[in-house]
Amino acid sequence: GAAAAVRADESPTIRWRLASSFPKSVDAIYGAAERLARRVGEITGGKFQIRVFAGGEIVPGLQVMDAVGQGTVECGQTAGYYYVGKNMAFAFETAVPFGLNARQQIAWMYAGGGRELMRDLYTEHGVVMFPGGNTGVQMGGWFRRELKSIADLKGLKMRIPGLGGQILARLGVVPQTLAGGDIYPALESGALDATEWVGPYDDEKLGFHKVAKHYYYPGWWEPGPQISFYVNLKKWQELPPAYRAAFEAAAAEANLYMLADYDAKNPPALQRLLKAGVQLHAFPKDVMLAARKTAFEMYEDEARKNAVFKRIYSEWKKFALASDQWFKVAESSYANFMHYVK
Amino acid sequence: GAAAAVRADESPTIRWRLASSFPKSVDAIYGAAERLARRVGEITGGKFQIRVFAGGEIVPGLQVMDAVGQGTVECGQTAGYYYVGKNMAFAFETAVPFGLNARQQIAWMYAGGGRELMRDLYTEHGVVMFPGGNTGVQMGGWFRRELKSIADLKGLKMRIPGLGGQILARLGVVPQTLAGGDIYPALESGALDATEWVGPYDDEKLGFHKVAKHYYYPGWWEPGPQISFYVNLKKWQELPPAYRAAFEAAAAEANLYMLADYDAKNPPALQRLLKAGVQLHAFPKDVMLAARKTAFEMYEDEARKNAVFKRIYSEWKKFALASDQWFKVAESSYANFMHYVK
Repeated sequence: GAAAAVRADESPTIRWRLASSFPKSVDAIYGAAERLARRVGEITGGKFQIRVFAGGEIVPGLQVMDAVGQGTVECGQTAGYYYVGKNMAFAFETAVPFGLNARQQIAWMYAGGGRELMRDLYTEHGVVMFPGGNTGVQMGGWFRRELKSIADLKGLKMRIPGLGGQILARLGVVPQTLAGGDIYPALESGALDATEWVGPYDDEKLGFHKVAKHYYYPGWWEPGPQISFYVNLKKWQELPPAYRAAFEAAAAEANLYMLADYDAKNPPALQRLLKAGVQLHAFPKDVMLAARKTAFEMYEDEARKNAVFKRIYSEWKKFALASDQWFKVAESSYANFMHYVK
Repeated sequence: GAAAAVRADESPTIRWRLASSFPKSVDAIYGAAERLARRVGEITGGKFQIRVFAGGEIVPGLQVMDAVGQGTVECGQTAGYYYVGKNMAFAFETAVPFGLNARQQIAWMYAGGGRELMRDLYTEHGVVMFPGGNTGVQMGGWFRRELKSIADLKGLKMRIPGLGGQILARLGVVPQTLAGGDIYPALESGALDATEWVGPYDDEKLGFHKVAKHYYYPGWWEPGPQISFYVNLKKWQELPPAYRAAFEAAAAEANLYMLADYDAKNPPALQRLLKAGVQLHAFPKDVMLAARKTAFEMYEDEARKNAVFKRIYSEWKKFALASDQWFKVAESSYANFMHYVK
């Protein structure tokens, strides 16, 4: 009777579908969506059930935002920089070239006003965004030939999507967009001269080191890429408060674990790659300097045309400057001592 | 009848007390305990209630482990390195001089086997440990006079507890242990020559910059200190599975938020301190090198005497070495470019 009704109201059985942009093979990322679903289920005694689908299973990987916004699925796992075509400001959610590293991104989102600044942008698209993971700074990718200077970028066919590709295009690169599975054969045949992917753990699985032995760092276009969960705004508002709290806590936990997972898996993968003969190189300084200059010119251009971008960018830049000043003092001085003084 | 009984069983009202080792004034740390309590309450619709008490309110700050292990309180917020007197291995939970930075510590705990390696040590004391926060690398502290070289450590009266104090004692420092509120007057009168505390955000509140303007970095004795939640083992086992899941997720969320909080609050605090005339200095290189050498000699000594320490230390050291190799390539090269190339 009444007691049962109250209970049903407080703890209804809810079934959601989560569409990921990512394939199962990128397991540290995809695993975070599974972790979220598992945790939300555990916390609610199996009442709030989220079923996870890999990229392409029910929604094409790059259409997750639309599918969530339109309610085709209740939620998704994706990355804002896939949607820079809608508004370049979505890049601030994931990664901006020469922008925040993982800790800075996390700090900006949770305690630096980043989520609040970006909230309206998602509301317009019928979505609520939750940070849900980070890969740490990525690698610069695999090159068939060594890069000596910026001149070597001229005509270089490199698989690199997004803003990084746009910046490199201005420096002479011919950027290509290929799905994960198509990269290896193109790199092997020489149809591609270079490719970026993620970092040692994910790159090793695709075997790029067998056909391009020069491994560059750092991946300045993705210094601390955030992976996010998107929830349909209306479905979010309809959710009982306890389930909302469970989802938020589980998303934050997934965020922490993904970075921990990468930070634990990349080191042994790097060691294996080095044993296999991979040659590590820093990008030439002239490449780094020209890329940074080009990146900030692009942001200033965009800010002149795009009021939403401008509003977020100006706050983001202030945060980044103050943060770099602090990280330089404490974190970098410690890291450099540990890395360089033997 | 039956339905009500089932419900009571699944979602009993449970009231726990959480004794923190920390005062409310260290709000980024203490706030994480409040966050945990609030979140667990929200998730369980107010059924699982945790009431938070500051250090000394019901349990003296440095006796939280005993109070939790003996069941005086169900849970606590504390830091393992307060208990190195029981076993030096507890330091691996919090911070080891010249050890892991925040990301490395998080990775080791959640994905690098750290929690599993340490589990038995807590079981012996009737406790389950959950990582619940991190401050990031701390500052080296406030000095009334500039340090030119290791010779200047001779006879220096410095407030520095724990392993850092033990190491500095071997280098000539006379380490002191003072509670937070007693430090300022001692530093002002010259009874103390130097003190460490946390970092810009917490240090500023205590006003040390008014009486000692030389601010040193990095705090090599606390490169990524973890703050933890301890739960009484028997109480944990009695908890319904859904409440256990809620507690775990909320603890991980608190961990993420505390670091985000510090990473957002330290940069503006550092800017204010610099404006107030504080002088930043790196520790002299001979101090860093001698301290590191002394630290690892201490660990090797302990490993010869303490089998538990030896087992954890040898795995921890492998993790740290591989991790440093990877962080040097990707994270540090990116950070150094951002910090040093203008």
